[in-house]
Amino acid sequence: MPYKDDQLHEEKVFKDPVHRYVHVQDRVIWDLIATPEFQRLRRIKQLGTSYLTFHGAEHSRFNHSLGVYEIVRRIIGNFENRDRWNNDERLLCLCAALLHDLGHGPFSHSFEKVFKLDHEHFTQQIILGDTHIHTILEQVGPGFSQKVADVIDKTYEDKLVVSLISSQIDADRMDYLQRDAYFTGVSYGHFDMERILRVMRPIEDQVVVKSSGMHAVEDYIMSRYQMYWQVYFHPVTRSAEVILSKILHRAKYLYEHDYTFKLEPFHFISFFNENVGLSDYLKLDESIVFYYFQLWQEEDDVILSDLCERFMNRRLFKYIEFNPNKQMNEWVELYRLFRETGIDPDYYLVVDSSSDLPYDFYRPGEEEERLPIHLLMPDGNLKELSRQSDIVESISGKKRTDHKLYFPKDVLRKLDDSAAKQRIMQLLHLEQHWKGAENHAD
Amino acid sequence: MPYKDDQLHEEKVFKDPVHRYVHVQDRVIWDLIATPEFQRLRRIKQLGTSYLTFHGAEHSRFNHSLGVYEIVRRIIGNFENRDRWNNDERLLCLCAALLHDLGHGPFSHSFEKVFKLDHEHFTQQIILGDTHIHTILEQVGPGFSQKVADVIDKTYEDKLVVSLISSQIDADRMDYLQRDAYFTGVSYGHFDMERILRVMRPIEDQVVVKSSGMHAVEDYIMSRYQMYWQVYFHPVTRSAEVILSKILHRAKYLYEHDYTFKLEPFHFISFFNENVGLSDYLKLDESIVFYYFQLWQEEDDVILSDLCERFMNRRLFKYIEFNPNKQMNEWVELYRLFRETGIDPDYYLVVDSSSDLPYDFYRPGEEEERLPIHLLMPDGNLKELSRQSDIVESISGKKRTDHKLYFPKDVLRKLDDSAAKQRIMQLLHLEQHWKGAENHAD
Amino acid sequence: MPYKDDQLHEEKVFKDPVHRYVHVQDRVIWDLIATPEFQRLRRIKQLGTSYLTFHGAEHSRFNHSLGVYEIVRRIIGNFENRDRWNNDERLLCLCAALLHDLGHGPFSHSFEKVFKLDHEHFTQQIILGDTHIHTILEQVGPGFSQKVADVIDKTYEDKLVVSLISSQIDADRMDYLQRDAYFTGVSYGHFDMERILRVMRPIEDQVVVKSSGMHAVEDYIMSRYQMYWQVYFHPVTRSAEVILSKILHRAKYLYEHDYTFKLEPFHFISFFNENVGLSDYLKLDESIVFYYFQLWQEEDDVILSDLCERFMNRRLFKYIEFNPNKQMNEWVELYRLFRETGIDPDYYLVVDSSSDLPYDFYRPGEEEERLPIHLLMPDGNLKELSRQSDIVESISGKKRTDHKLYFPKDVLRKLDDSAAKQRIMQLLHLEQHWKGAENHAD
Amino acid sequence: MPYKDDQLHEEKVFKDPVHRYVHVQDRVIWDLIATPEFQRLRRIKQLGTSYLTFHGAEHSRFNHSLGVYEIVRRIIGNFENRDRWNNDERLLCLCAALLHDLGHGPFSHSFEKVFKLDHEHFTQQIILGDTHIHTILEQVGPGFSQKVADVIDKTYEDKLVVSLISSQIDADRMDYLQRDAYFTGVSYGHFDMERILRVMRPIEDQVVVKSSGMHAVEDYIMSRYQMYWQVYFHPVTRSAEVILSKILHRAKYLYEHDYTFKLEPFHFISFFNENVGLSDYLKLDESIVFYYFQLWQEEDDVILSDLCERFMNRRLFKYIEFNPNKQMNEWVELYRLFRETGIDPDYYLVVDSSSDLPYDFYRPGEEEERLPIHLLMPDGNLKELSRQSDIVESISGKKRTDHKLYFPKDVLRKLDDSAAKQRIMQLLHLEQHWKGAENHAD
Repeated sequence: MPYKDDQLHEEKVFKDPVHRYVHVQDRVIWDLIATPEFQRLRRIKQLGTSYLTFHGAEHSRFNHSLGVYEIVRRIIGNFENRDRWNNDERLLCLCAALLHDLGHGPFSHSFEKVFKLDHEHFTQQIILGDTHIHTILEQVGPGFSQKVADVIDKTYEDKLVVSLISSQIDADRMDYLQRDAYFTGVSYGHFDMERILRVMRPIEDQVVVKSSGMHAVEDYIMSRYQMYWQVYFHPVTRSAEVILSKILHRAKYLYEHDYTFKLEPFHFISFFNENVGLSDYLKLDESIVFYYFQLWQEEDDVILSDLCERFMNRRLFKYIEFNPNKQMNEWVELYRLFRETGIDPDYYLVVDSSSDLPYDFYRPGEEEERLPIHLLMPDGNLKELSRQSDIVESISGKKRTDHKLYFPKDVLRKLDDSAAKQRIMQLLHLEQHWKGAENHAD
Repeated sequence: MPYKDDQLHEEKVFKDPVHRYVHVQDRVIWDLIATPEFQRLRRIKQLGTSYLTFHGAEHSRFNHSLGVYEIVRRIIGNFENRDRWNNDERLLCLCAALLHDLGHGPFSHSFEKVFKLDHEHFTQQIILGDTHIHTILEQVGPGFSQKVADVIDKTYEDKLVVSLISSQIDADRMDYLQRDAYFTGVSYGHFDMERILRVMRPIEDQVVVKSSGMHAVEDYIMSRYQMYWQVYFHPVTRSAEVILSKILHRAKYLYEHDYTFKLEPFHFISFFNENVGLSDYLKLDESIVFYYFQLWQEEDDVILSDLCERFMNRRLFKYIEFNPNKQMNEWVELYRLFRETGIDPDYYLVVDSSSDLPYDFYRPGEEEERLPIHLLMPDGNLKELSRQSDIVESISGKKRTDHKLYFPKDVLRKLDDSAAKQRIMQLLHLEQHWKGAENHAD
Repeated sequence: MPYKDDQLHEEKVFKDPVHRYVHVQDRVIWDLIATPEFQRLRRIKQLGTSYLTFHGAEHSRFNHSLGVYEIVRRIIGNFENRDRWNNDERLLCLCAALLHDLGHGPFSHSFEKVFKLDHEHFTQQIILGDTHIHTILEQVGPGFSQKVADVIDKTYEDKLVVSLISSQIDADRMDYLQRDAYFTGVSYGHFDMERILRVMRPIEDQVVVKSSGMHAVEDYIMSRYQMYWQVYFHPVTRSAEVILSKILHRAKYLYEHDYTFKLEPFHFISFFNENVGLSDYLKLDESIVFYYFQLWQEEDDVILSDLCERFMNRRLFKYIEFNPNKQMNEWVELYRLFRETGIDPDYYLVVDSSSDLPYDFYRPGEEEERLPIHLLMPDGNLKELSRQSDIVESISGKKRTDHKLYFPKDVLRKLDDSAAKQRIMQLLHLEQHWKGAENHAD
Repeated sequence: MPYKDDQLHEEKVFKDPVHRYVHVQDRVIWDLIATPEFQRLRRIKQLGTSYLTFHGAEHSRFNHSLGVYEIVRRIIGNFENRDRWNNDERLLCLCAALLHDLGHGPFSHSFEKVFKLDHEHFTQQIILGDTHIHTILEQVGPGFSQKVADVIDKTYEDKLVVSLISSQIDADRMDYLQRDAYFTGVSYGHFDMERILRVMRPIEDQVVVKSSGMHAVEDYIMSRYQMYWQVYFHPVTRSAEVILSKILHRAKYLYEHDYTFKLEPFHFISFFNENVGLSDYLKLDESIVFYYFQLWQEEDDVILSDLCERFMNRRLFKYIEFNPNKQMNEWVELYRLFRETGIDPDYYLVVDSSSDLPYDFYRPGEEEERLPIHLLMPDGNLKELSRQSDIVESISGKKRTDHKLYFPKDVLRKLDDSAAKQRIMQLLHLEQHWKGAENHAD
């Protein structure tokens, strides 16, 4: 049964704390939401380890995916009578918006790095492979799933469609900024989305913004800037992320060195071997990860059990500002001293760096190239945002990196007194003023 | 090292979306939060299966526990200079508030019913047993843990202290109404807590409310009423709860009938045997439950695997209004017809009833007796709320029960045509107008 | 130039704190807003003397009128494809919504009572008389202004149209509850209007509400109940209203007794003579009233100057609960004692009563008959709300009246000691516990 | 009766939509609020002509003054146990906060410019002159009123006290940003004040902010930047301001040229003569101004009556971007053409410029020198904000000026066709795309 134009008898709604209601008029959207692949997103947190810093941040990617869909639905609703807009692509946009994060796994960032995975690859596989999602999409029309996959992959020919879910001011970003602000409770993350949606116009290959809405866009950019530094790169969150990565590294290492786990970690085997199939990937949600972490707290390997116990019970590492590029000597010395005192520095002395580019204009050839934001001026011309806005210009293209050194303060404190201990304490400023993971969100 | 009066060097805060900030000044509170027993509450949802109806309702009991603590902290702050108030009990109140829900397990309601458990029993055990919590409480002073346990058990001698966390208008209820409204996104659940806190007064055995604040209290009572019927007893949530219970029943049944699970469900064994120790209890958080439900989707027993697949993928039962007391004949007939068509009615034809008493005055001898709300009149006398408030009087003491019959509509539809099928469809009004689980929050 | 279907080239918006934006698409609406008669509403407060109790309540009737228009616009937007709805009446509804309060003057309540006026009469006159409003309406089509007047007068033949701005759950009430709550800052007044608008359906002669939205309607009814008792009938607001009425009475009395005002009160002459023409009526906005009250503070008549000084500087009367029907003897005695001590009881001893009917079902023959709220049941039948809702039933049709006695406590205190003074103090409970106007919003 | 330490028997509260509640504990504060001089602030709008752009902006200076008081009260509450803080100055701070805007008159900006007044001068006079305010302040202690005046005048010796109400991040600014955002309904103006208050510390001569709160301060600075350009300098508001100024100019001109007004404008005489005494000043509130503007609509002088009619009925001037410094030739030509076509350019062709310095560090010798914001670093040192914050640095010290040319488009349109008219239309771009006052807030 072909799906096209198959409207639900009566519109359905989801109560949503961020957008008040998410409206569904199309049966295909309804059916996509009901698939196991989409329901699985309920078991994956939107913000990974952030809940250990901001206790409200327990919301899932399911939440966010509905939100992105809803924003695209509203944008398109405003476009209906515009010349440039081809309403045949309505359903394509809605599906791509809903499914764009489908390939995310638990704690994606760490898993991808440790096991050399790419969630975008799995998004493509879920849409094109042997899944409920695929079956439903193909009922819209043959080849429809490929189109959806192309939009998400940014290779779809109509770049206007792509820009709705992937640009400097797309539905994805507008949803997550507001949603993550709502659930963490921070006061950043607010901007006048209703105003932005009203002034968005489809022009050629992109969605542009009427210049009368420039200040609302400035607010959005600033909001993004604040959210990055206040929430996404919060050092306590990164402390948990560091421990998580080390757990995965250790488990892989043990597996590779023929360690015998008390219970065979069969969900992880293909990850350790770096040949994860779609079916294995879909099974590994956060509850499975937590299950193993709980078990591993009782493993004989002291590093694995300690790290798991730390993660599960939020006994995180402390940190200091530390730039290994500039502090090479201290780094080498600390590494040696840790080894000397019996604390494995490969697991317990970790540098983590974060960086963000709050707003960037187009630079051909870069990997993560995103379309810049263009303003539609009263005379009909387009101007790139940072040329009109002082504030945006001021933060445009400025990459800021923040390095921190993480370590288990509690362990160091319990070391027997020795010259090594004293020197460690000195190098890590442990006698002085310092901020630590115990500060939660402060 | 005794804890008493041991203030943190600098106040710590948690960013909280409901109360903006949760403030911690006492080291003992800080240390209690850091225990494994308390951190475990992060892995137990506050609202059980409600997230399947309201996707925002993914917040944990950890969240709520901090919130109750914060409200009690604010109430006590207002009491400081009142005659009746004994500030020596400050820390006792704070600890009891923080820990009052400590014994909750995953999906408490269903687990308690199926396995005959009582979360309050485990709260007592965690506070008094061999736990980190217990150790920290005893450092405040010998016997302090017993006092905390008594307050939570409502047996503590100073009933004023008890009433802060257990009365018709306690910190527990004030937090959960606001918090659950915030995370679900419903517009009910708002009342002027700041006003209520300002007019609370400690008098004799209870916290009373100055009569000038009566309307704020009315709003609170109405808010509670609406939250019960709109959120807590939502029929879709109950559909998930029904399936969950049936999974537990089936697994227990299979275990008792020597069924061989593909993986020994060792976390569940003591539950099946109904002799759960503290250590086993603490291990069973939601991620463990989800782990088994995922595995059991692939069990050979078709009932267990079907129910688990339904729960994990939100393929819920539909429902109709149905009062088995009044519709005994239909019930018997349906039961027989289900059996006849090969659908086990013990798992697939389930009546669920819910009821609530929105506000009740004291009735001696009842099990769940809670202190009524008293108003402090300008002349210094106390009056019971429902005598002063028309609105409260109107809903006071009225028990309302709502019965629904749950069944798998999808299975019934796929039955071969037969007289039995036709009769089932007729009895369940499946040809007519009906509301079903597909309505999500609508 | 006929107006019909004359859309603005580009939609205009007003930023509105309650509805976020008010959208205007029709040139006629735009032009009506720009008339002097409509702009005059900026100089008339929505809540009269309430700003003396709630300092935020300084918003004007201009605000509210735009809000009612916007709500009707949204309701109609949802009706567009419904059978019952005749979209030819769209512009009629919008105009009637915008203009329904056009005839209000400053502090309407007091002015109407003292000078025997009726703001609805003036609304009709402004729409049908020689005004900018009339000219614009007639450009829509001949006779259009009469239609608008009829809708506001509730005599228009299509009662569905009438019910949008005048029923138990009309746009007027939905706007003022939310708006007055917003500006006063009280926490009552919130209900889920978006939900209510979604479930409204035009059926026969009225707008009904799908039964699935019953709880949102309950919330609205409760909100109205709370706003009446917490805001609209606040005793401090009524104290100011009492003084205002007495000023008008006194000025009229003086005029009738050939008193010579320092400046001829020419704006008031036709009011004193009770033959107010449209032109005089439109000139008398709040700033004119304040101008005279300022001047009159310096009049020789001590009663007039004292009352004006009280009103302008918020030196209000205090009050006690007092029911003259039941306390006739005290009343007579107080009246006599006031006279005896030289305080004119006709101006300084005032009983004020207020009452409200929070929700009422239809009672044929009553003056203020408003259509009851009907629920549209799943089976297509209509049921009156109070039959389905316990809460509404409980407050339905219950008239509650509240009597208070107002008097100038400051004057009484300064009386020379005497038996009369002592008896007055006793009768007014001035030695005891009492609440007074100094409590502002508390 | 000395006031010091005279607490109210029971704390009083005002319901405030921005800060929820304003709390009053001191009798002197209560009594100051009740004075005629303070109550007068109810009749002066906080944002002057902004209500003609944002209809919600009808709030008075009374509102704002209570808000500033409340913020200072909260700041001081946090300071109580800090070394640097001298609690003897508590009452002084509270009084200065409450009274700092006392000297404002209606539409201060225009009145000050046209009549060469200074509201700060009148604030001093009200505090030190023969007023109720003065009497009450002196009851606190002899000389107390002079101290309050000095704090407001920034000459008080303890600069810490001064900085609470007059610095780059004082209570004044924090209140008006939030309050004006609330009443206009714009989404700018939000920042985390609770956080800022928590991290404020009294150090030497100023209030500094702990560096951990830097991002909240950035948000505040950005909020201020956005409010200036979106609200305070809105071109439609300025259009009304332009007309208002021209009315005052014309009335003064007529008075000076012996024009006979129909009613002697006795409230204005001392303003025309530029020798305004305190008593005259206090009488001139907004209702008086509106009274005259209404009368003047019927004056024989066509310029005065036209301008008054425009202001009262919001028939504002349109505008184009226009920098007279760079467009001298056009300016001269337009001026000549207006004169030629009989439209007096002195009243109908007006350039208005606005500018703002969003955040500035200290530059000795400048008139409006305000203390820069200092961050308290973890090592105890102070650093100036813009050195730590990229965003603030980017907008720091950058003066931006915006020039617009205002004119009555409606009049120009009605001119007879002529070369002059054509040239005017061309110079003012009236055939093209242009934005005008009809856009309200868009």
